Amino acid sequence: MSSIMDAIQEIKLEPVAVMRSPFEEKFAVPRQSGLVLEATGEVVFLPPFDDPAMLQGLQGFSHVWLTFLFDRCVDQGWRAKVRPPRLGGNREVGVWASRSPFRPNFLGLSAVRLLDVVSGPSPRLRVSGVDLLDGTPILDIKPYLPYADAIADAAGGFAPEAPVPPLQVAFSARAEATLAQLVDGASLRALISGVLALDPRPAYRRGAEPERIYGARLAGRNVRWVVNEAGLQVLDLDLAEAD
Amino acid sequence: MSSIMDAIQEIKLEPVAVMRSPFEEKFAVPRQSGLVLEATGEVVFLPPFDDPAMLQGLQGFSHVWLTFLFDRCVDQGWRAKVRPPRLGGNREVGVWASRSPFRPNFLGLSAVRLLDVVSGPSPRLRVSGVDLLDGTPILDIKPYLPYADAIADAAGGFAPEAPVPPLQVAFSARAEATLAQLVDGASLRALISGVLALDPRPAYRRGAEPERIYGARLAGRNVRWVVNEAGLQVLDLDLAEAD
Repeated sequence: MSSIMDAIQEIKLEPVAVMRSPFEEKFAVPRQSGLVLEATGEVVFLPPFDDPAMLQGLQGFSHVWLTFLFDRCVDQGWRAKVRPPRLGGNREVGVWASRSPFRPNFLGLSAVRLLDVVSGPSPRLRVSGVDLLDGTPILDIKPYLPYADAIADAAGGFAPEAPVPPLQVAFSARAEATLAQLVDGASLRALISGVLALDPRPAYRRGAEPERIYGARLAGRNVRWVVNEAGLQVLDLDLAEAD
Repeated sequence: MSSIMDAIQEIKLEPVAVMRSPFEEKFAVPRQSGLVLEATGEVVFLPPFDDPAMLQGLQGFSHVWLTFLFDRCVDQGWRAKVRPPRLGGNREVGVWASRSPFRPNFLGLSAVRLLDVVSGPSPRLRVSGVDLLDGTPILDIKPYLPYADAIADAAGGFAPEAPVPPLQVAFSARAEATLAQLVDGASLRALISGVLALDPRPAYRRGAEPERIYGARLAGRNVRWVVNEAGLQVLDLDLAEAD
């Protein structure tokens, strides 16, 4: 047996691709992949990993695994215990029992649907069910192998089922008017509906402050909404200013 | 949107745990996790990631994801195209369409069954269905979330089904005598049967040289076997010498 000490060494990795997604800030990003199928994005390969030969054979797979870095969390450090949203944000579990981004090495893992393999001079994967922030560095891409990865009898601990989208999403007249003017209005509407139906508010905000206006940047738009007894209403979706 | 250039930076990781497995050399390691349920092992946490608090809540999950480094492949470098065993070893695919270890960043991903969470002074996970070499540095451990990870309708490209173990495994009188003397003889027999039934021989060797004696180090034993028309016969399993 090799020594345990052999394993204690620094490992240097480099991004092989970068995620292009509609999520430009952490608030409102779906908490797992596959929850919002309307969330599409692109995995854009970086040199020298952008050789189209590396993609040959991938188009036969319906899903791929993305291993990525939670780069926007690294500065805050990792935590031994976390409070998962699935437990209402008030019960702690160990970080190894969670998919929290505030974990040692800050590695993320998402299974996304593979819509298209774009070869050519700038190879990329079109994917859906995305839960990665725009600009996320991707460290590995693997085909999803159903026979090894889809474990039918697996038990999911404190998160056995997919979260049921708790909110009905309606759009104000102003928001509808904006959508009607957009070429991509229908897909933007579906994206906003899918994301907001999952109620991105932190658990401690739910049931409080019905007049509070929430906002998140989604697909280049500043989306603003309120939540009250009637459900969620999107107020407006103005063009976000560039950074 | 953030610049693609922001993602191009070196990322430094450190092992959080080390794998203890019966596989001490690459030959005969199952080619995916879950194929040989008799292959048990331990994920041994390394300081400072060995705090039992980090494991709280994990025991409710039946499976965990291990993200690890293919450390025994790093020296050989990565390849743009590989010849997966599933295609008989003679057809090439792009490395992104494979789970080959010879990939950029050399990251591995395995879903293993969680048998037990051992807290106390040396925290560890007892797992089965292992396909990692002994001593493999582990970079992350996540709970398997059935609702997000078990994609029932996924299409598996050129590897749609689990490989059917092609070989019947028999044991010589000498091998049986050795097993009969061992306290762990039954589990060792099951491990050897499960591993060798999958036929670890490279595809180009199959059907050739029926007299050839193969050998692999498994669970501290030098296991030797032959394959002929009658199936596979384990010749002997002598104690391996320590390195």
